[in-house]
Amino acid sequence: MSTLIYILNGPNLNLLGKRETDIYGTTTLEAIADECSQVGAEFGLQVKMLQSNSEGQLVDWIHDAREEAAGIIINPAAYSHTSVALYDALNTFDGPVLEVHISNIHKREKFRHHSFVSPRAEGVMAGYGPHGYALSMRHMARLLKLG
Amino acid sequence: MSTLIYILNGPNLNLLGKRETDIYGTTTLEAIADECSQVGAEFGLQVKMLQSNSEGQLVDWIHDAREEAAGIIINPAAYSHTSVALYDALNTFDGPVLEVHISNIHKREKFRHHSFVSPRAEGVMAGYGPHGYALSMRHMARLLKLG
Amino acid sequence: MSTLIYILNGPNLNLLGKRETDIYGTTTLEAIADECSQVGAEFGLQVKMLQSNSEGQLVDWIHDAREEAAGIIINPAAYSHTSVALYDALNTFDGPVLEVHISNIHKREKFRHHSFVSPRAEGVMAGYGPHGYALSMRHMARLLKLG
Amino acid sequence: MSTLIYILNGPNLNLLGKRETDIYGTTTLEAIADECSQVGAEFGLQVKMLQSNSEGQLVDWIHDAREEAAGIIINPAAYSHTSVALYDALNTFDGPVLEVHISNIHKREKFRHHSFVSPRAEGVMAGYGPHGYALSMRHMARLLKLG
Amino acid sequence: MSTLIYILNGPNLNLLGKRETDIYGTTTLEAIADECSQVGAEFGLQVKMLQSNSEGQLVDWIHDAREEAAGIIINPAAYSHTSVALYDALNTFDGPVLEVHISNIHKREKFRHHSFVSPRAEGVMAGYGPHGYALSMRHMARLLKLG
Amino acid sequence: MSTLIYILNGPNLNLLGKRETDIYGTTTLEAIADECSQVGAEFGLQVKMLQSNSEGQLVDWIHDAREEAAGIIINPAAYSHTSVALYDALNTFDGPVLEVHISNIHKREKFRHHSFVSPRAEGVMAGYGPHGYALSMRHMARLLKLG
Amino acid sequence: MSTLIYILNGPNLNLLGKRETDIYGTTTLEAIADECSQVGAEFGLQVKMLQSNSEGQLVDWIHDAREEAAGIIINPAAYSHTSVALYDALNTFDGPVLEVHISNIHKREKFRHHSFVSPRAEGVMAGYGPHGYALSMRHMARLLKLG
Amino acid sequence: MSTLIYILNGPNLNLLGKRETDIYGTTTLEAIADECSQVGAEFGLQVKMLQSNSEGQLVDWIHDAREEAAGIIINPAAYSHTSVALYDALNTFDGPVLEVHISNIHKREKFRHHSFVSPRAEGVMAGYGPHGYALSMRHMARLLKLG
Amino acid sequence: MSTLIYILNGPNLNLLGKRETDIYGTTTLEAIADECSQVGAEFGLQVKMLQSNSEGQLVDWIHDAREEAAGIIINPAAYSHTSVALYDALNTFDGPVLEVHISNIHKREKFRHHSFVSPRAEGVMAGYGPHGYALSMRHMARLLKLG
Amino acid sequence: MSTLIYILNGPNLNLLGKRETDIYGTTTLEAIADECSQVGAEFGLQVKMLQSNSEGQLVDWIHDAREEAAGIIINPAAYSHTSVALYDALNTFDGPVLEVHISNIHKREKFRHHSFVSPRAEGVMAGYGPHGYALSMRHMARLLKLG
Amino acid sequence: MSTLIYILNGPNLNLLGKRETDIYGTTTLEAIADECSQVGAEFGLQVKMLQSNSEGQLVDWIHDAREEAAGIIINPAAYSHTSVALYDALNTFDGPVLEVHISNIHKREKFRHHSFVSPRAEGVMAGYGPHGYALSMRHMARLLKLG
Amino acid sequence: MSTLIYILNGPNLNLLGKRETDIYGTTTLEAIADECSQVGAEFGLQVKMLQSNSEGQLVDWIHDAREEAAGIIINPAAYSHTSVALYDALNTFDGPVLEVHISNIHKREKFRHHSFVSPRAEGVMAGYGPHGYALSMRHMARLLKLG
Repeated sequence: MSTLIYILNGPNLNLLGKRETDIYGTTTLEAIADECSQVGAEFGLQVKMLQSNSEGQLVDWIHDAREEAAGIIINPAAYSHTSVALYDALNTFDGPVLEVHISNIHKREKFRHHSFVSPRAEGVMAGYGPHGYALSMRHMARLLKLG
Repeated sequence: MSTLIYILNGPNLNLLGKRETDIYGTTTLEAIADECSQVGAEFGLQVKMLQSNSEGQLVDWIHDAREEAAGIIINPAAYSHTSVALYDALNTFDGPVLEVHISNIHKREKFRHHSFVSPRAEGVMAGYGPHGYALSMRHMARLLKLG
Repeated sequence: MSTLIYILNGPNLNLLGKRETDIYGTTTLEAIADECSQVGAEFGLQVKMLQSNSEGQLVDWIHDAREEAAGIIINPAAYSHTSVALYDALNTFDGPVLEVHISNIHKREKFRHHSFVSPRAEGVMAGYGPHGYALSMRHMARLLKLG
Repeated sequence: MSTLIYILNGPNLNLLGKRETDIYGTTTLEAIADECSQVGAEFGLQVKMLQSNSEGQLVDWIHDAREEAAGIIINPAAYSHTSVALYDALNTFDGPVLEVHISNIHKREKFRHHSFVSPRAEGVMAGYGPHGYALSMRHMARLLKLG
Repeated sequence: MSTLIYILNGPNLNLLGKRETDIYGTTTLEAIADECSQVGAEFGLQVKMLQSNSEGQLVDWIHDAREEAAGIIINPAAYSHTSVALYDALNTFDGPVLEVHISNIHKREKFRHHSFVSPRAEGVMAGYGPHGYALSMRHMARLLKLG
Repeated sequence: MSTLIYILNGPNLNLLGKRETDIYGTTTLEAIADECSQVGAEFGLQVKMLQSNSEGQLVDWIHDAREEAAGIIINPAAYSHTSVALYDALNTFDGPVLEVHISNIHKREKFRHHSFVSPRAEGVMAGYGPHGYALSMRHMARLLKLG
Repeated sequence: MSTLIYILNGPNLNLLGKRETDIYGTTTLEAIADECSQVGAEFGLQVKMLQSNSEGQLVDWIHDAREEAAGIIINPAAYSHTSVALYDALNTFDGPVLEVHISNIHKREKFRHHSFVSPRAEGVMAGYGPHGYALSMRHMARLLKLG
Repeated sequence: MSTLIYILNGPNLNLLGKRETDIYGTTTLEAIADECSQVGAEFGLQVKMLQSNSEGQLVDWIHDAREEAAGIIINPAAYSHTSVALYDALNTFDGPVLEVHISNIHKREKFRHHSFVSPRAEGVMAGYGPHGYALSMRHMARLLKLG
Repeated sequence: MSTLIYILNGPNLNLLGKRETDIYGTTTLEAIADECSQVGAEFGLQVKMLQSNSEGQLVDWIHDAREEAAGIIINPAAYSHTSVALYDALNTFDGPVLEVHISNIHKREKFRHHSFVSPRAEGVMAGYGPHGYALSMRHMARLLKLG
Repeated sequence: MSTLIYILNGPNLNLLGKRETDIYGTTTLEAIADECSQVGAEFGLQVKMLQSNSEGQLVDWIHDAREEAAGIIINPAAYSHTSVALYDALNTFDGPVLEVHISNIHKREKFRHHSFVSPRAEGVMAGYGPHGYALSMRHMARLLKLG
Repeated sequence: MSTLIYILNGPNLNLLGKRETDIYGTTTLEAIADECSQVGAEFGLQVKMLQSNSEGQLVDWIHDAREEAAGIIINPAAYSHTSVALYDALNTFDGPVLEVHISNIHKREKFRHHSFVSPRAEGVMAGYGPHGYALSMRHMARLLKLG
Repeated sequence: MSTLIYILNGPNLNLLGKRETDIYGTTTLEAIADECSQVGAEFGLQVKMLQSNSEGQLVDWIHDAREEAAGIIINPAAYSHTSVALYDALNTFDGPVLEVHISNIHKREKFRHHSFVSPRAEGVMAGYGPHGYALSMRHMARLLKLG
């Protein structure tokens, strides 16, 4: 029987692979979901890939995760830097949380260097590209004592 | 004939009484609505209890309040610290506004010490627990010359 | 048998109701003491109303409260923003502490937005006018399991 | 054949002309749309006027503009000061962007002096009143080599 | 009978169109004066175009404008960021003031993001290129109830 | 008939003329009182010279001044930099207030450059030595339309 | 035989008494020169009253003062807050320097609270109105051992 | 013949050994006085132990010390962080000053990391517990060339 | 034929697994080296594990890596926050750099939130525990087009 | 049987007594070691006196102390203000740590007012001169229940 | 045939060698011009030495240099710290720019540590005394491939 | 007989001329040593060129210089911005110190704009390239009254 992992994606990530490919590369969210499912299958983990441009929707999904998911991998994108609401929502979730940024935010504008979400996450990763999701799946398995 | 008071609640408050009970206690929003209705009844005030995780929805409701409500009691939760939009929306409302925080935000992370909404409110209360809503109902009555 | 609540008032509050009535209204400390006694009587609470312009005197009274009082309601006025001594004194007191400001300090000069005392208080209230004392008496009763 | 310009409006602008008329005047969004259409007609430009109180909705519309519009005129209102998501969304758009504020934000609260959106815009205008939209239409035409 | 508008230009603008054309374009001050005169003629406005590298000279001209001009359009250039004297001078002028920057100063060095002059201006515009002067002429006409 | 001016002196000024004479000179408070009385006599002003090391005592005297004095000259000394209570007390006084510092505080430690009291004073003087009191007496007379 | 005192006035003070009379009053520089000459006559001091809107001109005059004047009274106006050049120039002058501001700069915008010139001055005065010049003449006499 | 050392203690230290014993331990001021007297006796030093919650009283005692004491050991407690008056008072004292804090203030709230008094003291000690007084007595003896 | 990866470890990491196991866990550097070698073997990568408490030594090793290594995985530990020298050294290296922190530095003291090294790294990871090294080995392989 | 105390000294302290004797006096490290040994002998404590100009060496010695020493007295000198590595190293040590500065760092440059090491130390002392080491030996004995 | 180098000097440098000789020494601008001409002669460089107390004049001369000079050596003196106009002017100049300060500005007031001009200069030198000009002449020759 | 000058070079300068040649050029340390020796020979100065990546080693060499050298030319590289230890070490040296940076640090990252060492140096030079060493040799000769 498999365990569900929520993979939540914040604003503008629906365009991943289609815009600013010099920063974010050409991989799409769908391709990432596939790679994560493959890695998850090794450890008995299933994946639910979600994306929204709305802060409120993301909060709602985190509340859903309280019922359904064993762990959350989240790329809050722009909301990393401005959303206390996401931070509070994640604090209502009991399982492990991993925060992934595709680009290395430390090379970019100063306001991207701070994430409200990071103090709630078990781990934070930036600049590992789309690969970061799959690497975080591997670590999620370890945190859940599956890998 | 009774007068309507909007009680607006920001993100994650739908989980009140169900999460982080060490910080927020075990009282639910429904219980608070009941206590506020009881207090309101003493002064001829009715209560409309609303909650949303979406900043835009809260703005919409404040616009509705312009037509329907004599006063607003608002717990903006996480949006207190990040939302200029709520501040602007409340500035379009002519009646009294009271801002309530269940926990004492001054004991918590530094980013919770500032609220964009406070300069618009008649009064601000933090740390009086769920009781703060009912106390604010009493004060709303006084501001409306009913108590 | 009744329980004693100290209501401590900081500098310039002896002039309450007699000065700057546009900011502070026309209610005097005596009138506030009366309203608090009335509310207190509902819950078996007695009130001791004190005011001083001297920081040291206020510290002394907090030490007295350690022997005599079950709770403290304090309006530190100007000393809110400058007194570590009051904060330290309140930390020597074991019962609940509620901090009351008559005006909404968040609408005023920036130096009034920070209070050294707040992290020690159970609750903090600003802008509820003289009514804030009586509302805090109600909450004190609840904190003492009397209301 | 005409070219489409998106005119996007942020939170509370639905009340334009109906609230705080001392700051924002009495012109409504509809009247602005009319003036912009008139100016646009001179240069073969059509206008799509949109308003939302939701940050996520505004992001969605900017994504739509990628398909439909030759340029964007945006008044992000309160979200100017708090939204990295809008900034990121506009970075996915290839055409010219003009940022318009009705009031002179430099005369107002300090937090209104900074806009996350401005570094992405070709031009930024504040305090030209509702007229600013029409003036920006003229400039949009010039940027598109139509005027 | 026509009304006079002063168009004041700060340091280094005498070289406009001749230097750093990647930032400022190839239009000269003379060409701008021509376009402004043309627009002004539509509304019965005359233009007096002035430029100086000296802060004191610019202050003197603003004093002259008190006698001669109905409005001032000013591009303070580098002095925007360092001159309280210009701000004080403009405060002695009773008519409308519009502040124009050719480039979008929000894309440039941080010290260019603040202008001492802006709180005195009716409107502020940056990044509309040399066109910004003519657009401001149009708005000046409207402010003077001529357009 | 003469009018009374309070001259209030803050902490350590009792030692004036007896300590750190390189900074403060050798004139004593008594000598200053004499010079002020002489100047006052020219304009029909009497002087009440007071000094205390206690912030609370100074607040009390300002309250007394509300009943007795037409103006206040105050050298708050160290309390200039730390006392909101004095600022609030002076705000309860309706007559003119002049703030005098014997040494030029702008030449000294950075924390002496800010005075909480200054925004309440009609005028502020520093570095005019003991002479500053007498000069302020002259100005007090002018403010009271006596000189 | 009389001794010469330079009274230097910075930008916009040529309009004194003619503009913003709510802040600066209706006294002109000429009237101030007269009052200063009268006071000076008591002590054998002559006055040279100068005003310029140019920072460089003011620097030049301070250099002249090195040859001609026994003391300088300076109201640097806007240049107080922005001019290191005036500070350096005054440091080349050996006699006493008194800095006068007509309005109380501590009641105004924050950038007016700092003056580059103050650390060089013997004394600094703000808010004593046009009277401050004459009072400073008296003090200059005392500093020069004439009064 | 013995020499007198003042040991001054600031607010709330009267409760030492009776409150917050996890931070401050169970030793009382009296016990400290005893230990200091014992150490002092070794070097011919007498001790005068004083405590007050009033800033003004502490200033007064420092003035007394000018007449009576060869050195001052001071634990300004909360006033360390807020009192310029104590700093100024100590500057009027010619003998050596040692500043003692019982707890290690560098492990506590950030506002406790700065002491106005420290730049005046010969030495500063924090976290050596009640023992710090006796150790400072030993050092005082050495500074007075007695040990 | 295999390719060499340097894994550099900063100060105190020699004690990994032996100290503060609540923060860093019980895995030793040797165990990490083993896991990395295993992962490396999958992709034809060899590992050279180095640790030093000396900043200069770490700089020297980075210089060596210029000759020997295809990529660097570095955990600069305490030097992350204080060493410009390491940043400069890494800038002399042409291959990919990955920065690994065992604990989530965003949950810890504020001075740990900034790393001088991060802007040079391709990716940065914190809080993935000792596992982070092996995950980074996987990513290194991908960056080198081996995985 | 005696217990060992490490006394660690940071950069430039090898020159103690030979340089800048106005700040640090003429006592050498050797003389300090002697005095500490004498005091230690009273309590059964032995002393190991070490000095290095290398941060890495100091870290190594702290690691050695984990095996050999019951307590550490450390004067980190310049590294106090810049070394997170020393702080982390001391956190791996279980015994008491005392931090000693010979001069009163609060009288010196601002960057010397902060020490990374202080939050780890039991006690911190500055300005007690070379005597501070011996006083700390006495306190070490008390912390180890030997004095 | 020789090439012309402009040597520009800011406010108060006309007094060089005549004032504050403890800071600036006794060499005059004329002497510096001589030494620079001598050094220039070695490399076929001519020198034009200019000084003004007026920011606008210095801007004008930089514009002249665009026509006449191969390089600029500038000592902006006080304007270094306050003039964006000079920075902008130098950006219109295509040749090399060297910035010279006679005294070591890093030993002086904090506001002298920042120069607006430095980011435009090829090199910046401070504290090399009047010699710095001649050394910069040598370097100018090298930059122009003459030395 | 010749006099010895130490030329000290900080971390990564061993790679000078071999790395990042766009910033630092292609000249090596050896070539610089040669040029400095040639210049030194003109004035009877010998040169000892040293480089280390270790802060402690650089401190040691400065101590050596106390015995051997008449002056120090130092390029502290990365340690400029982080090392108080070097600053303290240089303060133990009595001869002149000149600080050289090859690139213009004011054009680079903000953390490179501050050097701990500069307040100790006689002169500071940045952006004069490798030539800066030889120019500083010339100045060293002048400081030593040899040139």
